Amino acid sequence: MAHAFERIGIIGKFNALEAWETIGRVIEFFSQAGCTVYLDQVCCPDFPIERYPARQLPREELVRNIDLGVIVGGDGTLLNAARDLVEYDIPVLGINLGRLGFLVDFSPDTLEQSMQAVLAGDYEEEYRSMLKVSVHENTQEVFHHLAFNDVVVHKKDTPRMIEFDTWVDDHFMNRQRSDGLIVTSPTGSTAYALSAGGPIMDPRLDAMALVSINPHTLSNRPVVVPGSSVVKVVPSKTCTGSAKVTCDGQVTFEIFAQHITHVQTYEKRLRMIHPRGYNYYDILRTKLKWGS
Amino acid sequence: MAHAFERIGIIGKFNALEAWETIGRVIEFFSQAGCTVYLDQVCCPDFPIERYPARQLPREELVRNIDLGVIVGGDGTLLNAARDLVEYDIPVLGINLGRLGFLVDFSPDTLEQSMQAVLAGDYEEEYRSMLKVSVHENTQEVFHHLAFNDVVVHKKDTPRMIEFDTWVDDHFMNRQRSDGLIVTSPTGSTAYALSAGGPIMDPRLDAMALVSINPHTLSNRPVVVPGSSVVKVVPSKTCTGSAKVTCDGQVTFEIFAQHITHVQTYEKRLRMIHPRGYNYYDILRTKLKWGS
Amino acid sequence: MAHAFERIGIIGKFNALEAWETIGRVIEFFSQAGCTVYLDQVCCPDFPIERYPARQLPREELVRNIDLGVIVGGDGTLLNAARDLVEYDIPVLGINLGRLGFLVDFSPDTLEQSMQAVLAGDYEEEYRSMLKVSVHENTQEVFHHLAFNDVVVHKKDTPRMIEFDTWVDDHFMNRQRSDGLIVTSPTGSTAYALSAGGPIMDPRLDAMALVSINPHTLSNRPVVVPGSSVVKVVPSKTCTGSAKVTCDGQVTFEIFAQHITHVQTYEKRLRMIHPRGYNYYDILRTKLKWGS
Amino acid sequence: MAHAFERIGIIGKFNALEAWETIGRVIEFFSQAGCTVYLDQVCCPDFPIERYPARQLPREELVRNIDLGVIVGGDGTLLNAARDLVEYDIPVLGINLGRLGFLVDFSPDTLEQSMQAVLAGDYEEEYRSMLKVSVHENTQEVFHHLAFNDVVVHKKDTPRMIEFDTWVDDHFMNRQRSDGLIVTSPTGSTAYALSAGGPIMDPRLDAMALVSINPHTLSNRPVVVPGSSVVKVVPSKTCTGSAKVTCDGQVTFEIFAQHITHVQTYEKRLRMIHPRGYNYYDILRTKLKWGS
Repeated sequence: MAHAFERIGIIGKFNALEAWETIGRVIEFFSQAGCTVYLDQVCCPDFPIERYPARQLPREELVRNIDLGVIVGGDGTLLNAARDLVEYDIPVLGINLGRLGFLVDFSPDTLEQSMQAVLAGDYEEEYRSMLKVSVHENTQEVFHHLAFNDVVVHKKDTPRMIEFDTWVDDHFMNRQRSDGLIVTSPTGSTAYALSAGGPIMDPRLDAMALVSINPHTLSNRPVVVPGSSVVKVVPSKTCTGSAKVTCDGQVTFEIFAQHITHVQTYEKRLRMIHPRGYNYYDILRTKLKWGS
Repeated sequence: MAHAFERIGIIGKFNALEAWETIGRVIEFFSQAGCTVYLDQVCCPDFPIERYPARQLPREELVRNIDLGVIVGGDGTLLNAARDLVEYDIPVLGINLGRLGFLVDFSPDTLEQSMQAVLAGDYEEEYRSMLKVSVHENTQEVFHHLAFNDVVVHKKDTPRMIEFDTWVDDHFMNRQRSDGLIVTSPTGSTAYALSAGGPIMDPRLDAMALVSINPHTLSNRPVVVPGSSVVKVVPSKTCTGSAKVTCDGQVTFEIFAQHITHVQTYEKRLRMIHPRGYNYYDILRTKLKWGS
Repeated sequence: MAHAFERIGIIGKFNALEAWETIGRVIEFFSQAGCTVYLDQVCCPDFPIERYPARQLPREELVRNIDLGVIVGGDGTLLNAARDLVEYDIPVLGINLGRLGFLVDFSPDTLEQSMQAVLAGDYEEEYRSMLKVSVHENTQEVFHHLAFNDVVVHKKDTPRMIEFDTWVDDHFMNRQRSDGLIVTSPTGSTAYALSAGGPIMDPRLDAMALVSINPHTLSNRPVVVPGSSVVKVVPSKTCTGSAKVTCDGQVTFEIFAQHITHVQTYEKRLRMIHPRGYNYYDILRTKLKWGS
Repeated sequence: MAHAFERIGIIGKFNALEAWETIGRVIEFFSQAGCTVYLDQVCCPDFPIERYPARQLPREELVRNIDLGVIVGGDGTLLNAARDLVEYDIPVLGINLGRLGFLVDFSPDTLEQSMQAVLAGDYEEEYRSMLKVSVHENTQEVFHHLAFNDVVVHKKDTPRMIEFDTWVDDHFMNRQRSDGLIVTSPTGSTAYALSAGGPIMDPRLDAMALVSINPHTLSNRPVVVPGSSVVKVVPSKTCTGSAKVTCDGQVTFEIFAQHITHVQTYEKRLRMIHPRGYNYYDILRTKLKWGS
């Protein structure tokens, strides 16, 4: 019987010795199952790959040669990989290192059984939307990037708030003074945006949420907009000093008064693989300690 | 030239003398324009209809004989009418009595000009989703109703919180103790749900939000779910005493421990007519005092 | 050696069989230690007192004959007793029935050891402020009561908000439409007020907090006022229908448009006994699940 | 008749031409009234002092030679001056430049009449508490400063949250990951802390509030502690990178993992002069747009 996936690419937590044992088990399992296995080079440069039936590849090469991405780490590791995997339509699953994540929901305790099920096609899958951000100076794009969780426009290293206008689909929304604005995907709604007072969005939603960070105007509230929207953030003319655009808390670009930031849903969605019986709300309850 | 609408039904604020002058102007305008005009009987039983070129009809008859509903009053008047108008696919516009509403956004100051534009087909239109609620006891439906803003399951007259389980599409979401749960449409997101900490939802969204009222668990947060979802509220077995289901703050049904409440998006959407240049965010800014 | 306390009054959870075993242990312990022990009649009318070296007394008589109140139950049991004990300056301690409370912080597991320590004077003590509420119609007081946690003025059984003015020390604070107003003591700040968005107040604070319940005005925020303040809640003239005043979620008085509610700190404070090493913030962390 | 104040020190908005006319009027008024008038040098170095009956003095000299500080500017100008004035027990009043502040509440429109009243002793006065912060490395104090509004320990220029422990009077409160912690005086409770979700504190309160900025733990809530408390912020050992301590959004000190920050109420309070009829809640209503 053919496997659901034949060529496996493993991406581990960056520079993390504690992931090695699990990475080893993943390699062994998929190799013995007859799959071809690759390990991301950049995440684990010192991993003793020579002892395992797998090859290391640079990230760009890896993503062109696999049909399943297996993350070994935390949500941050998956966030980082997602931005590369989505481009090649590669499905992804995440094995956590002992602590359930919102995204990495396969447990290492039952790794072999659950990977067996995945190979047999016995899993849940869903598509998650991503964001793309671009920064424009006059007619020129000076930065663009993808984000799985969120794009944050925020003040740089200053005690002062920043002032900017927000537009949704060429409709002026508001001018605000605040520490910044989070534009979050449904996936990112349980990350930074939640700390800032944003709502939880079911990952099936085709939507983005705009969540202001410590807004000066007290009647400011999070706004959920359609996934088809284009959100524009335009610094106020009186805004001196600089601010930053940050993607998934990982990639940053410094902006100035002349820079206009566009955020919209990316045209490709990420295919995520979950264990059979996966229920988003189960994870939510556990992570947010909703249980009694 | 044919008008965009020929048969006009006017629904005024219930028992409100202050609406009579505007109702009179609306009748005169549409009548002189050659339209047939009806006035809702139940809202304005004492209105001196004999002086005007219009007839009064009971609500059920009215909605079967018009192709435009004209509301004269506040948002509450439109909410009330919407639940009837949507059934017959009748578009609706709202003329406020001097104070801009989220829904009633035609000003009486420019009534004749703006109604002229409407008849000429010069307006913005959009479709707003509505909610339907049903309450079940075993296999039997014991109550059902429509709501434009929100369906609220809340404690009755008691200082104690109520306890209940919430399910989304047959996925268990959580068990909570609180004063109740608001299930809101995008339209209702600026009504009671906003006071309870819910997010604003762009009316184009196909979604509902679940907003707990004073939840005992502090990590409880509003959850936005797809418009296609079925939300179920199941009282906890240990829940003694009674609670209520309220639609748009206007229609109420008392529930007990054996009653399961279902809320979902209604299959029909309401067509709303707005003045040319309408921008949802303009109204939001004005109503929430976001302007400087 | 003389004991710190000689005459012990036990007040158990109302009508709760699950408290009986612990009540029995408390009676046995204090009796063997040479104390005189009384059991509250109203809380446990069916308790088999004849098997124990103690007598049952009506609450009013009990509080006049003891120098330590021992609560066996949850926070609600202590709240109820506190309003009687404070009048006679009787210190109180609480033994929980297996689940730590904010107030009942002696564990039944180590009951005998910890009560031994208490008798030996080895404990922490602190004074907690209480609230008194009175309702006035013209010049006449029509209701008054004490509260340990909070006094809540809230809408009665209606979907509509209520409208009222709040005054602090004869300074007009605001007119609001909301579901009600919570006036909370520091002790009550972790009860209902916390669900409604109020701050936590260190119990040493001489202060009250005013927390609106789902206020219509989005810039409404909790306000902390000095313990010496007099808070007045005056229904708006346009307020039809009725509302209620509720003390500690237990005692209720119905109010109408002509009723003015006064809340202030009570002149006596309650002396609470805690286990040696007591730290308010330890309980807070545990109850609010702040720990990792 | 003797004046309430004889030696007047004026401190204007820093480098602000728009304040000059009002500063001129203030000088003329007090000079004609027979007072000695000084102008702060650092705030208005280019002010044409030679045309006015006043002298310019450096700030340190100014505060030693006056018995009333008159601020011409916004709340920020008064904040800045307050930290100097409090040391010499000099009362202060604020004339705003046309826009009511929380602190600068004399209007320029009626400047001469209201200053006349002040000289005649016809005013309201109140005392406001201030904060002092000190940063310690081992046994050495490496920074100390005063703040009128708030002391903020916050992440530096990084997308990551910081992790630290908070202690209140040597009681461990919690370990948190967040963007930072605001320790606010009652006066500062309407400034940055309010944007971050903190409560309003009546300025008569002897208290501080601890307000976390975007805390990762969702059950985190603002905590109000007694004015006599010592708050300590201790970076987590695992905290790499750096953070900052900022006073009133104006003065900043960079801290590292080994730095412990202490915040407490300053031993001196600031005497503030308000117009007769001053009511804190009137200003609150206006600034927060609570009015209808």
